Amino acid sequence: MRVLGIDPGLTRCGLGVVDGSVGRPLRLVAVDVVRTDPGLPVAQRLCRIEAAIEEWLDIHRPDAVAVERVFSQHNVRTVMGTAQASGIALVAAARRGLPVALHTPSEVKAAVSGSGRADKAQVGAMVTRLLRLDEPPRPADAADALALAICHIWRGSAQARIDAALAAASPQAPPPTIGSRT
Amino acid sequence: MRVLGIDPGLTRCGLGVVDGSVGRPLRLVAVDVVRTDPGLPVAQRLCRIEAAIEEWLDIHRPDAVAVERVFSQHNVRTVMGTAQASGIALVAAARRGLPVALHTPSEVKAAVSGSGRADKAQVGAMVTRLLRLDEPPRPADAADALALAICHIWRGSAQARIDAALAAASPQAPPPTIGSRT
Repeated sequence: MRVLGIDPGLTRCGLGVVDGSVGRPLRLVAVDVVRTDPGLPVAQRLCRIEAAIEEWLDIHRPDAVAVERVFSQHNVRTVMGTAQASGIALVAAARRGLPVALHTPSEVKAAVSGSGRADKAQVGAMVTRLLRLDEPPRPADAADALALAICHIWRGSAQARIDAALAAASPQAPPPTIGSRT
Repeated sequence: MRVLGIDPGLTRCGLGVVDGSVGRPLRLVAVDVVRTDPGLPVAQRLCRIEAAIEEWLDIHRPDAVAVERVFSQHNVRTVMGTAQASGIALVAAARRGLPVALHTPSEVKAAVSGSGRADKAQVGAMVTRLLRLDEPPRPADAADALALAICHIWRGSAQARIDAALAAASPQAPPPTIGSRT
């Protein structure tokens, strides 16, 4: 499965594409950070971010998109731009009918490092190790986008297995009807 | 000048189109509220809002778009969805090369009622009077979208006149060069 992770932001928006599945090595496909000039009008900056995301969807053709869930409580000064950029990312994926998921920063940190309170350096170090890179991706937004994609690959697969197990075990589930005529 | 006013929101997004210019009667072209199901994923809800805005831009062909500026300090519970919807609105306009402006709620209230602290009922009453409607547009998001469009028509024209006057009065402004050869 190929996942595009997006760490939304108006000044720096991280984009990272990872191939992988649970229990197999992960592979870095691409990583970059889209930057927009704080001196430009917000509408133009959001357009630039949308164009970059569209280009990445065209080039890398991910199976799913993972976007960081934004909370209003932290970074009040920049949160509006971050929320606007996340909206652009969600729509770009949904317009193409791609599955799109939101993961919280804690979920992402826990997925890659085992701790929901891991710091930027730990996340960067784990992304470097998991993708067998020579050095941590810079800036942090690039590493965060890759961590989001990794989180989605692992959580998505786990969730699919849990859903399948629950469906199989559910007393409400209809019995197999292979070959039956009704 | 024809302006599309957008009062962004995830559950209810107000859209209002007004024709007018300073010193001439305003005319209501269209008003509606796009509603999305809170039970749907955010990405799908934003897609629905984008589709509605695109449709209105196609049908009504406004000269400019005015979007309410969202602040993070109020309505913390719903502000993220509002910010995401505003981002969608800004990009939809900017993608088409349309001028897009942000007006604060206080600016809009002051423009239509003379007071930045006017309440919803006052704004609704003034929109009704200015557009010569039989009754206030409902719900409030519809009236707010029309108030935004009216604010933009008046502020935009005033700003253009101020800019023109400043340019004419500026000692840095190049002298008229009609017919000159350089």
